Amino acid sequence: MIFRQTLVTLAENVSRSAKSIPPVKLAYKNMLRDPSVKYRSFPVPKLPNRTWPNNTITKAPRWLSTDLRDGNQSLPDPMSVEQKKEYFHKLVAIGFKEIEVSFPSASQTDFDFTRYAVENAPDDVNIQCLVQSREHLIKRTVEALTGAKKATIHTYLATSDLFREVVFNMSREEAIVKAVEATKLVRRLTKDDPNQQGTEWSYQFSPETFSDTPVEFAVEICEAVKAAWEPTAENPIIFNLPATVEMTTPNVYADQIEYFATHISEREKICISTHCHNDRGCGVAASELGVLAGADRVEGCLFGNGERTGNVDLVTVALNMYTQGVPPNLDFSDLTSLIEVVERCNKIPVSPRAPYGGDLVVCAFSGSHQDAIKKGFNLQEKKRAEGNQIWAIPYLPLDPKDIGRDYEAVIRVNSQSGKGGAAWVILRCLGLDLPRNLQIEFSTIVQDKADALGRELKADEISKLFRETYNYNNEFFNKIALLDYNVEKVGDDRRNLTGQVSIDGKVYDISGSGNGPVSSMIDALSNLFNIKFAVANYTEHSLGSGSSTQAASYILLNYRRDSDNQNAYQWGIGVTEDVSDASIKAIFSTVNNIVASGEVPLPESSQARAAGHA
Amino acid sequence: MIFRQTLVTLAENVSRSAKSIPPVKLAYKNMLRDPSVKYRSFPVPKLPNRTWPNNTITKAPRWLSTDLRDGNQSLPDPMSVEQKKEYFHKLVAIGFKEIEVSFPSASQTDFDFTRYAVENAPDDVNIQCLVQSREHLIKRTVEALTGAKKATIHTYLATSDLFREVVFNMSREEAIVKAVEATKLVRRLTKDDPNQQGTEWSYQFSPETFSDTPVEFAVEICEAVKAAWEPTAENPIIFNLPATVEMTTPNVYADQIEYFATHISEREKICISTHCHNDRGCGVAASELGVLAGADRVEGCLFGNGERTGNVDLVTVALNMYTQGVPPNLDFSDLTSLIEVVERCNKIPVSPRAPYGGDLVVCAFSGSHQDAIKKGFNLQEKKRAEGNQIWAIPYLPLDPKDIGRDYEAVIRVNSQSGKGGAAWVILRCLGLDLPRNLQIEFSTIVQDKADALGRELKADEISKLFRETYNYNNEFFNKIALLDYNVEKVGDDRRNLTGQVSIDGKVYDISGSGNGPVSSMIDALSNLFNIKFAVANYTEHSLGSGSSTQAASYILLNYRRDSDNQNAYQWGIGVTEDVSDASIKAIFSTVNNIVASGEVPLPESSQARAAGHA
Repeated sequence: MIFRQTLVTLAENVSRSAKSIPPVKLAYKNMLRDPSVKYRSFPVPKLPNRTWPNNTITKAPRWLSTDLRDGNQSLPDPMSVEQKKEYFHKLVAIGFKEIEVSFPSASQTDFDFTRYAVENAPDDVNIQCLVQSREHLIKRTVEALTGAKKATIHTYLATSDLFREVVFNMSREEAIVKAVEATKLVRRLTKDDPNQQGTEWSYQFSPETFSDTPVEFAVEICEAVKAAWEPTAENPIIFNLPATVEMTTPNVYADQIEYFATHISEREKICISTHCHNDRGCGVAASELGVLAGADRVEGCLFGNGERTGNVDLVTVALNMYTQGVPPNLDFSDLTSLIEVVERCNKIPVSPRAPYGGDLVVCAFSGSHQDAIKKGFNLQEKKRAEGNQIWAIPYLPLDPKDIGRDYEAVIRVNSQSGKGGAAWVILRCLGLDLPRNLQIEFSTIVQDKADALGRELKADEISKLFRETYNYNNEFFNKIALLDYNVEKVGDDRRNLTGQVSIDGKVYDISGSGNGPVSSMIDALSNLFNIKFAVANYTEHSLGSGSSTQAASYILLNYRRDSDNQNAYQWGIGVTEDVSDASIKAIFSTVNNIVASGEVPLPESSQARAAGHA
Repeated sequence: MIFRQTLVTLAENVSRSAKSIPPVKLAYKNMLRDPSVKYRSFPVPKLPNRTWPNNTITKAPRWLSTDLRDGNQSLPDPMSVEQKKEYFHKLVAIGFKEIEVSFPSASQTDFDFTRYAVENAPDDVNIQCLVQSREHLIKRTVEALTGAKKATIHTYLATSDLFREVVFNMSREEAIVKAVEATKLVRRLTKDDPNQQGTEWSYQFSPETFSDTPVEFAVEICEAVKAAWEPTAENPIIFNLPATVEMTTPNVYADQIEYFATHISEREKICISTHCHNDRGCGVAASELGVLAGADRVEGCLFGNGERTGNVDLVTVALNMYTQGVPPNLDFSDLTSLIEVVERCNKIPVSPRAPYGGDLVVCAFSGSHQDAIKKGFNLQEKKRAEGNQIWAIPYLPLDPKDIGRDYEAVIRVNSQSGKGGAAWVILRCLGLDLPRNLQIEFSTIVQDKADALGRELKADEISKLFRETYNYNNEFFNKIALLDYNVEKVGDDRRNLTGQVSIDGKVYDISGSGNGPVSSMIDALSNLFNIKFAVANYTEHSLGSGSSTQAASYILLNYRRDSDNQNAYQWGIGVTEDVSDASIKAIFSTVNNIVASGEVPLPESSQARAAGHA
């Protein structure tokens, strides 16, 4: 690269800068298989008496949403003012008490929105604004926040070697001087200003990026800032320790937090805050381990919006605590409506596999998972009746109802699903708890259909397939209709049945005997068709409760096919309010299905009564 | 709920099951703010001499892709056979040496695909199949794998209290007996079968779900399985320790792994494998901490496909190691084409914020981030010239080029972007490294445009906006065209310039003087327009290299507006191969722009030469 500086001579009023720029296409060698020349492992701080891995999270941290600041600034299409307002009110409704709303010194739009937040925030909601450590910007930021009930000025300064040297060309000493100056200025303009006493002013300082800053220096600069601010235990200074870029495994971030928490003085006057990004996919873990290591506060965004891979997802961190019996103090009981607002404002969809919020997260497709979940629900129902309220369902760490989702979505059915999946859908759609053998038979039918279509079957498709296949309640085939019947007791265990059925408008008398109505009716139909029907399985259960209780009967008939004289089986289903009718309806559902298949011939019409007798 | 069991009496050939089912709508109380009655914190195992937090990852683990098994089974629309084949070959191409391809005993489709994999796998690729611990299913699975060079039979059994009791109603003792029986059967059918000696058989056992199994029992059942299999150090048994459901913070999973690794006997004959899901968003962290704790192998799927929240994302785990200087032995250098295959086969998009793979991950929108990245690139270019190859760019833990992405995407511009963003686009698109004041001016123009449109501006839109705004190389306004000029030296620091320009087809003589060609030309144009142009800023740099080197000149002219007699400024840009021409072109770019704006009047046409003299 050549700079030809001899060619032009300029008069003294011409400021001249001669620069060389990198070529647009850099020489590049694929080093994927050996990046050792290009990347270095992160130097791990020494923490000899580490205690955080022995801790568990027992109470919720303070939460700060930076959706409107860090989140919004990273959107390809930032929120409109109206969207920001809607988002702000949603954050308040969820229960956020600390909300970073803007960078008011950067633009008039941000300034104006800060005023809106100040004027519309409930008294217990703290409005936070970010600002660089520069005098005129700090002044403008204080102006934006003036009149708030609670406000936090958040300054930041490059403290990592990379950021100090590359971005600001500033020594450690210069950084400390600058941070202290900024802190003193904020102090003078806020809590020390007699005109600003209507506001409860808090101060937050972020050594940027903490995750890449030597921990000793992070403590050193924060000690200086703390001395300049003079916090109290009642209104502690917030040291936000950002993993603006994730540097290594999340245990190291926890070590850094624990080092900071155990080396800073006047710990009781400090609120340690995490601010994790997700470059290595460990933002949630880093925030959680940070809390184990002593952090009091967690910053992040809903569903992990934010620069690059996003800030940590606060929904996940909060609901993770929830499933451990720790109230998060944030209300995600209507996650669906929250997702709607977030997706509309951010214009970035929540991933189908995002923890808790994702569409596919409460769904099981595989047969063994579906089976386990179904068994789990059954057992839990029993335990619930015994007074045990603990949630313990295989594969479902959270009750979907706790976030406003229903059980219908839990089990979904594709060609990989086993008997449990289809059975679950039938249970949820029709209330029918199918006998095991019927589950197995029906699941094969569903699998074949899903395979043929090459896609998931929807619940209503499965429900329709079931009703058609088994001539549910004679809804599809009803050639042989029962007109009337009567059962007469003959001795202790014998019943005689007489009745009439109609076939194609002709009435036939039927009669048979057995030890109950079911066996008598089977015998009567066997006589009518001159074929031996035998009951291979009979199952019944109630469904619903109270005045709407119904009965469901399942009958499996065994018979000999006319076409090839082979043994054949057919299920039928009857559901009625009158339980004694359900079994009879099931029998006719089966026999009608068999007749419709053409596998047994209709009775001779000569057997019918003369017309008019019906 | 009432079961009316007295209503129907059945013959002895009727099997009867009386059941009660849960009501479709369960009584539900919103417990979000106090879930303590419903959820319990996970009981943490005791690990007094924990060592894993002191470890770092220094070499890649063995990898197993279960994309075609655990991944595929959880897709709403599973892969077609052709898609499975394409995916399989892609996994091989990336470098996977262990691939779980199916559950061959579950369906003919899975069986047939297993045969395809066996017949088409390179010799060093191990084909793994999952099977329940049941005899006829194991036999079918061995059949599917027969003839493979390397094959692994993977059995699993419920070991957690919840799974054992809810799903299988099986005691711990019964579980051990069943696991041992299955292991012995696999052994008899594979490595002990004289007809199966052409295959290198491995065996994998998963205590399900390990993350919820008391660690002592996990060790106990694995000891029994190990004794039944009798592994060697050369071909160790694989104990896969699944976090099928994430139960708590990932440090606890690491504790469980370290407990297992330090309590199982014959550690050298064992390969400990992690299999993490992502219910709490910590699948990557759990896998990494698991490796720190002693795991030798990591199971997962590309981009985190799999049941519910997905299996751990192997792309992230591998590239996390990569950025620490550890070669992962998987080739993600063309991540874009990989994403194309995965999205097409899975029909689930990779999230825009997914680590490494997401669209927005190498993008910065905020001004300060953009500025830092731009400075980082400049400094790195210098260091590179000095032989320092280490990657150290603010906000970018990985060189985008290492995964086949380019730098054009790094900085994107919306209304939140500062001067760095637009300047980066101009640098990348036009090769122009704008002077700082021009960056500031142009970024305001870009911000206003993005604000007006309410969206991100594309690179080509920004580039076009720049060229139009500054009449780049006189491409938009060229009313005053330079025909010829000559500079004569007069003494040591004085130049006289004479030349001709054409305006609306008329030719004008120009003359002026200064201490160089730029100042002389400015003087000549000042004389022509009878207005005082002054150079407020002049900057130039070379661009490109070698024979295609060009020069870029930026000139900021100060003048007095005709309309209001106020001071005004205008930038212009000239880019040519001949460096001396660039500055002249920049001057005409500026003056033409000023003339086009109507802010200075054209010279009197009476000043023009007589026609024909040009």
